[in-house]
Amino acid sequence: MRTLSSWLSIPPDSDFSLYNLPYGIFHTGDGRARAGIAIGDRILDLEAAAESGLFGKRRFFRKIFAQNTLNEFIALGKPVTGRIRKKVQDWLTQPSAPANAEHLLVNRLSAHMLLPVRVGNYTDFYSSIEHATNVGKMFRPDNPLLPNWRWIPVGYHGRASSVVVSGTPVRRPWGQILPAGQDTPVFAPSRQMDFELEMAFVIGKDSALGEPIPVDKAEEYIFGLLLFNDWSARDIQRWEYVPLGPFLGKNFASSVSPWIVPLEALKPFRVKGPKQNPAPLPYLQARGAQNYDVMLEVAVSAGEKSVQTIVSRSNTKYLYWSMAQQLAHHTVNGCNVCVGDLMASGTISGPDTGSYGSMLELSWGGKEPLRLNDGSSRAFLENGDKVIMRARAEREGIRVGFGEVDGVILPETNR
Amino acid sequence: MRTLSSWLSIPPDSDFSLYNLPYGIFHTGDGRARAGIAIGDRILDLEAAAESGLFGKRRFFRKIFAQNTLNEFIALGKPVTGRIRKKVQDWLTQPSAPANAEHLLVNRLSAHMLLPVRVGNYTDFYSSIEHATNVGKMFRPDNPLLPNWRWIPVGYHGRASSVVVSGTPVRRPWGQILPAGQDTPVFAPSRQMDFELEMAFVIGKDSALGEPIPVDKAEEYIFGLLLFNDWSARDIQRWEYVPLGPFLGKNFASSVSPWIVPLEALKPFRVKGPKQNPAPLPYLQARGAQNYDVMLEVAVSAGEKSVQTIVSRSNTKYLYWSMAQQLAHHTVNGCNVCVGDLMASGTISGPDTGSYGSMLELSWGGKEPLRLNDGSSRAFLENGDKVIMRARAEREGIRVGFGEVDGVILPETNR
Repeated sequence: MRTLSSWLSIPPDSDFSLYNLPYGIFHTGDGRARAGIAIGDRILDLEAAAESGLFGKRRFFRKIFAQNTLNEFIALGKPVTGRIRKKVQDWLTQPSAPANAEHLLVNRLSAHMLLPVRVGNYTDFYSSIEHATNVGKMFRPDNPLLPNWRWIPVGYHGRASSVVVSGTPVRRPWGQILPAGQDTPVFAPSRQMDFELEMAFVIGKDSALGEPIPVDKAEEYIFGLLLFNDWSARDIQRWEYVPLGPFLGKNFASSVSPWIVPLEALKPFRVKGPKQNPAPLPYLQARGAQNYDVMLEVAVSAGEKSVQTIVSRSNTKYLYWSMAQQLAHHTVNGCNVCVGDLMASGTISGPDTGSYGSMLELSWGGKEPLRLNDGSSRAFLENGDKVIMRARAEREGIRVGFGEVDGVILPETNR
Repeated sequence: MRTLSSWLSIPPDSDFSLYNLPYGIFHTGDGRARAGIAIGDRILDLEAAAESGLFGKRRFFRKIFAQNTLNEFIALGKPVTGRIRKKVQDWLTQPSAPANAEHLLVNRLSAHMLLPVRVGNYTDFYSSIEHATNVGKMFRPDNPLLPNWRWIPVGYHGRASSVVVSGTPVRRPWGQILPAGQDTPVFAPSRQMDFELEMAFVIGKDSALGEPIPVDKAEEYIFGLLLFNDWSARDIQRWEYVPLGPFLGKNFASSVSPWIVPLEALKPFRVKGPKQNPAPLPYLQARGAQNYDVMLEVAVSAGEKSVQTIVSRSNTKYLYWSMAQQLAHHTVNGCNVCVGDLMASGTISGPDTGSYGSMLELSWGGKEPLRLNDGSSRAFLENGDKVIMRARAEREGIRVGFGEVDGVILPETNR
């Protein structure tokens, strides 16, 4: 990789290096939402940059960036968004600070981040073989990995309306729960609140209804990636999910990180995925390195001020099914995708106990509670618990990170 | 009911009587989409009516109606949309034709109907006990009606992007299919194309994330109803649906009728639903008549010009779970709903063989093919087959109908 340097001071341990340049939507207290690119401890205000003429076509780009979602920008297509990225990288790497630098840069700590895209459709996959096997052992002891799993990148539709941005608190849901050994459900707050460590990709290009996306063209349709916490209420999920899948056990909230890391920034971190056996059907066969080596971690703290405990360290490279395979499968029947759609990976668990991506697996169904650094223990999440997920790729001193997605569990409402 | 009469000639067998006044989006060949109300063989052009001052606030309502979806209109809320409905009913029932009548009315046959709402989220329920039992017998012979079914209005998220308006052809999907008796799937066009006879309701009011909608307030959030055909590829569905539910077996297309019948127009047809045993949990207990007596039928013809065969006659009153119960359940965990969201009932089968709402049930898994009026027989749908669904409520000579939702099966693409 070419070594880049900037007139701007960028902390060496920053997720938001010159090689990253992720996109987000922010405001600075005035509620005026606009697009920005994170760089070190700052945000490049893209509306102001457009106004200053950095991208040409001032009025056009100013309008594109003065919005509360990135959908219109993303819809311009990779030739245009790639050119914007290049202009920003060039601007940051010129020999000395441009005169308008301070005018265009915002302190990242003073910005409020908003949901970066309007999510039209959200799909959740189930692409980690370790996760599917672990959950299978607990939910269906006789039959952990189902016969279709190694053939199909299994997925299902989730709820788009309840996708929220990092920092949004999550209220403990009420629901129907079947107490162990009974045959009549009770209505109660979930007692098995959980997180799921996932990555999601953002669709960057519409496809037409009836037109499948071939596996070797799939990445043309992927704009970038986000960290994704698919909050789950296991007790609600367990009682409801047969035969039509998870519903209220999941759709009370799903949290995303505020910065979309462009796929381009992750290209240096491509790696081969696990060997697939049996060989997938031809429409799912992709050549080359299809996975990404991105380190993941989950921390839990008992409230904002408490010490954090890293409860899981995983990696997106463990995913059995690649994003390209997920997208090829999703559209092979003619289902269309739209700019801003989210496709999440499913929980990313690795092979070792410490790499499991949910409390369900980490505490093995609640039977082996985790010890936190503050001395308390957890089978599932408690009220006030904060879950923080982080992701970053690193190679030859170059770092491309995702920042964080976090959320605090609020107590249930009174009923 | 008060008897209404109009200066406009309305065929007595029209679905679109003075008591109905459903909303849709249309254009007349010029591509200029606008909102209208169906009345007999005509459409009242709401943009033109607003322009003429029929509703007051000319510019405001002109802008509301000069759009390609009804979302902004619906979002005005029932006090406003109800006032518009009343103004239109008054205009149609004045003693003689107003001078601008011909200017505001469009011939319905010359109009192209568009998808009436931008669907943010689509949920499909499974609320007919007859359908759930029939499908259960075929998919899970040992265990037809699952233990959760009488407790939960079972539902799952469907795909919003592939909801299409009546008249849109549906291409036979390719997908993974497990041939009987084998353990390796093949990639092939579906050989078990099916329809599902459903009704859907359109959400008329946003709810906040974290705030459940109580069952006795649910109808405040329901703007109106549509006919819904949840096209299904049974062979694809059977192989994929365990454990996360139907996905590619459904999301290649779902068709809606173009006219949204306001909930208000259906109030005279309220009836009690089936007795629920066991009694639902308190959050699902609703008083009074919660179902609607709407007759349904499905016709199939082998191509546009062929004779139609009525293959099913059913009724929405058979639904075990009411719309109010569905919506209360959907939001009990805090999941939010948005104007334009669709919630479909699931296949509405009645108690008799002739009232089953899918080919899967009518041909009992393909084992008892149906005889069509043209002499051919069908286990599932063939290429060129047209499926037409109709719905209407009738009482004391008063008729409120839904028109039709139809679609033709196109052959699969070459691969």
